[in-house]
Amino acid sequence: MTLETLPAVLDRIDRDLDASLDRLFALLRIQSVSTDPAYAPHCRNAAEHVAADLRSLGLEATVRPTAGHPVVVGKSANGAAAGKAPRVLFYGHYDVQPVDPLDLWETPPFEPRIETLDAGRKIIVARGACDDKGQAMTFIEACRAYKAVTGKLPLDITMLIEGEEECGSKHLFGFVRDNAAELKRDLALVCDTGMWDAQTPSITTSLRGLVYEEITLTCADRDLHSGLFGGAARNPIHVLADILSALHKPDGSVAITGFYDGVHELPADIKADLAELDLTPEKFLGPIGLHEAAGEKGRLLIELISTRPTAEINGIVGGYTGEGAKTVIPGKASAKVSFRLVGAQDPEKIRASFREFVRARLPADCKVAFGNFGCNPAFEVAFDSPALGKARAALAEEWGKKAVTVGAGGSIPIVGDFKTVLGMDTLLVGFALDDDRVHSPNEKYDLKCFHKGIRSWARILAALAD
Amino acid sequence: MTLETLPAVLDRIDRDLDASLDRLFALLRIQSVSTDPAYAPHCRNAAEHVAADLRSLGLEATVRPTAGHPVVVGKSANGAAAGKAPRVLFYGHYDVQPVDPLDLWETPPFEPRIETLDAGRKIIVARGACDDKGQAMTFIEACRAYKAVTGKLPLDITMLIEGEEECGSKHLFGFVRDNAAELKRDLALVCDTGMWDAQTPSITTSLRGLVYEEITLTCADRDLHSGLFGGAARNPIHVLADILSALHKPDGSVAITGFYDGVHELPADIKADLAELDLTPEKFLGPIGLHEAAGEKGRLLIELISTRPTAEINGIVGGYTGEGAKTVIPGKASAKVSFRLVGAQDPEKIRASFREFVRARLPADCKVAFGNFGCNPAFEVAFDSPALGKARAALAEEWGKKAVTVGAGGSIPIVGDFKTVLGMDTLLVGFALDDDRVHSPNEKYDLKCFHKGIRSWARILAALAD
Repeated sequence: MTLETLPAVLDRIDRDLDASLDRLFALLRIQSVSTDPAYAPHCRNAAEHVAADLRSLGLEATVRPTAGHPVVVGKSANGAAAGKAPRVLFYGHYDVQPVDPLDLWETPPFEPRIETLDAGRKIIVARGACDDKGQAMTFIEACRAYKAVTGKLPLDITMLIEGEEECGSKHLFGFVRDNAAELKRDLALVCDTGMWDAQTPSITTSLRGLVYEEITLTCADRDLHSGLFGGAARNPIHVLADILSALHKPDGSVAITGFYDGVHELPADIKADLAELDLTPEKFLGPIGLHEAAGEKGRLLIELISTRPTAEINGIVGGYTGEGAKTVIPGKASAKVSFRLVGAQDPEKIRASFREFVRARLPADCKVAFGNFGCNPAFEVAFDSPALGKARAALAEEWGKKAVTVGAGGSIPIVGDFKTVLGMDTLLVGFALDDDRVHSPNEKYDLKCFHKGIRSWARILAALAD
Repeated sequence: MTLETLPAVLDRIDRDLDASLDRLFALLRIQSVSTDPAYAPHCRNAAEHVAADLRSLGLEATVRPTAGHPVVVGKSANGAAAGKAPRVLFYGHYDVQPVDPLDLWETPPFEPRIETLDAGRKIIVARGACDDKGQAMTFIEACRAYKAVTGKLPLDITMLIEGEEECGSKHLFGFVRDNAAELKRDLALVCDTGMWDAQTPSITTSLRGLVYEEITLTCADRDLHSGLFGGAARNPIHVLADILSALHKPDGSVAITGFYDGVHELPADIKADLAELDLTPEKFLGPIGLHEAAGEKGRLLIELISTRPTAEINGIVGGYTGEGAKTVIPGKASAKVSFRLVGAQDPEKIRASFREFVRARLPADCKVAFGNFGCNPAFEVAFDSPALGKARAALAEEWGKKAVTVGAGGSIPIVGDFKTVLGMDTLLVGFALDDDRVHSPNEKYDLKCFHKGIRSWARILAALAD
C-alpha cells in the first residue's frame, strides 16, 4: 500500500520544496551553538522549534530536560498497523558548531541563503545547513509529505533529536539508558553521514571498534651507563622494538593469535562495488604527503581504512630523548598500541591475546605492566539485513546509481549504544558532500542533496513499510 | 744494569715506607678540590707541592698555568742513556673530588690517618688517599727509591700531573696539543685504575670507542587520526621498530654489514685468564636487578662489557607519550643509537654502514634524517706489546699472581688523545680496590696497595729500562 502511494508522495515533495526550504531556513536562523553556554537560550528555542515541527506531523513531541541542552522526543501516535514493518527510531541533532572565525563567512552564518554556482548548481549556505539541520530535515520533510498525502506516517516512528552532538553527546548516553523502553525500536535511522560523491549515494554499514593498550617494560632497577653495562645488561628498548616489530607479518597482517577471528570477508558484490569506486592511494594519501598504502597487502585501500582491522603503535618512549647524546641504557620503556576492530572481533579476547603475545616474547630480566585505555566492539550491519537491502534499492531508484556501502574507520559512540543498550541496528544514510565545509565557515548543503535527500527517505520509508 | 739494582731499590722502598707515607700525608692535607672555585688557592698549593716534590727527585719541574688549575710538568734532566729503553710520560692528577656530605666522614677528610681493620689490614683514610694522590705517589715514590739508590731515574721520565681530572680535564686537551713536542714520549704510564681484586694485579689494555647516531623518520606531513587513516598510512614508529629490531641477530650479534671488521678475538691465553676470573652474570648484574647476560651469545660476561663491540638504543620517542590514550598515527619518530667500538673498528665506516643499514630498510613514504653525536675509535694496547709483557711479568713477580689484562667498557678521553695527538700507547696500571669508596665519604687506600704499588712500579721501571 505504501509503495502505491509513493509517486504521490514524491510529487508532493517536489511541489512543496520551497516550503520545505522555508521550514529549514527557519531552523537555520536559530543560533543553537551547543558548546558555548551563552547560546543556551538559543538551543532551548531550537528544541522547542523542532518539537513544534514534529507536532505538525502529528507526532506527540516533548522537550525533555537533561543536565545540558534538552532532548526532543517525538512519537507517532497513530503508528502504522502492527505487522512486519519495523518500528524505527530516527536520530539527529539540532545543535551546531560555533561559527568563528566569523570574518571568513561571506554572509552571516545564521542568515541562510541560496547561492547559485557554476552550471546552475544551487547551494544552501548557513551554519548547520548540512550538519545536521539540513540532513535531519530531509527525514522530517519526507514524513511531512506522507502526512500530507496519506494523513499519517508510513511507519511507527520515534524521533530523538538531541542538542549536544557537537560537544560530545555527553548527556545523551544516560538519557538513552534512562529511557530505553521508550527508545528501543526495531531499527535506528541516522542522517548525519555523506554520499560517496555528488552522484553516488552511500550507506555507512560499519564503524570500527577499538582496543587501546599501554605496555611498559622494565629491565634493570635503574638507568645504566652504556660504557659499563653495554653488551651485558638487557635493554628494554631493544625488547620493545622486537615485540612491536613482530606485531605485523611481512604481508602486513597482524601476527597476534586469533586476531582475525570474527573478521569477515566482504561479500563479492560489495567488494566489487567498492573496487569500482577506485579510491587510489594517490587520491587518499596524496594530500598528507604519502602515496603508497601501508598495512595488509592485496587489499583495496578502502578496505584497509574501513573494513579491515589494524594494529597501530600510537606512541613510544624510553631512555634519553632530549637534545644531543647520553650514553644510557634505560631501566624502562613503554608504548601505546591500539587495535581497530571490525565485524565480530571480541575486544576482550584481543586484549588478552595481545598481552599473551607480549609475554611470550619477554626475554630473561624483563617485566611487563599493561594499561587499558579503551575497549569497544565494532558496529556492523549485516550485508543481508533486509532493511539494508531495501534502503540500497530505494537509493538506487532515486539516484539512478547503485548505492555503495562503506565502512567508517572511526567510531560513533551513540550508534554503539543503540546496539549494546537498545539492541538495535542502525542504518546510516546521509547526503553530505566532501566539499560541504562542515564545521568551517560558509558551511553549505547542496539544494539537490536536500531535495533528493527528502525523496530518498520517502523511498526508504516506503520500502521499509512494504 | 737496572735489574741488578732492583733488589736494593725494593729494599730501600721497604725501609722508607714511613717517610713515603709522610710525604703522601702532606699532599693529602692540601684541600685541592678542583670543581669548587673557592678551593683554587688549595689547588695552586697542591701544584706547587707536587712540583717541589718532583724537584727533590732531580726533575726539572714547572707549574704551568692554564685557563683553569695549573698543570705540573716534570722532566728528568739527566735522562737515561739513549738506547732502546722507552722514554715515558707519566700522567696523574693532584685534584680531588668534593668531600660532601661531610657529616658521613668518620674523621675530617683532609686529616689523613691510618686505620687498622680486621686481620691487621691497614688502610689510609682521606680524600684522595686513592684517587689519585695515593696512586700517583706510588709512581713518584718508586722514582725516589731509584734516585736514592742509583742517584738517578732508571728511564727518561716526563711527569704530567694535572689539576682538573675530577671536573672533566677541560684544559688538559688543549695543553697536550700546545705542548705536544715536550709531552710526546714512547709510552704513557697512568696509575688511576684498579686491581682485579685484593690479590690480583691488573692492567687495563683497552678502552672502548663510541659512535653515537640519532635517526629521525618522517612519513606523513602531519599527525593523523588512526580511525581515518589506520591501516593505510605508513606509521614511522612501525618502521623504527622494524629497523631497531633488525639491528641484532638472534645470536645477539650486530647485523650491520662490516660491523666486526677490525674486531679481534682475544688471544687464547688472555681469554683463559679472563675465564678464570669467573665474573658471573649473577655477580655483575645482580646488584642492578638482572641475572642473565644479554648481548652476544657464547661470550664471557667480561668480554661483553669490555672487549666486544655493542649496539645500544639509548633513547626512542614518537607519537603520544602522555597519560591515557590518543588515537594518533604520528608523522615522525626518532631514536638515539650508539655503538661501543673495540680493536681497529673504524668509527666512520661504522657510521656509514649503519646509515646504509637504515636506508636499506626504509619502506615507501618514509624519509630519514641522521644526527651525529660522537665518534671516537677504541684504544687498545697490542697484547704482544713488549712494554705490556714486561709490565705483566713485573706485576706477577711482585704479587705472586699472574696480572690480568682487562678492557674497560667506557672511554678515558685523554688516553685517546695520547694516542691520536701524541702517537703513543698508554699502559694503565693501578692498585685501587672495589671498596676504596672513591668519590665517596671515607675514601681509603690499602696500605698494602700503596706499599706494593711503589714496589710494582719499581719493578716495571726496571723491566722497561732493561
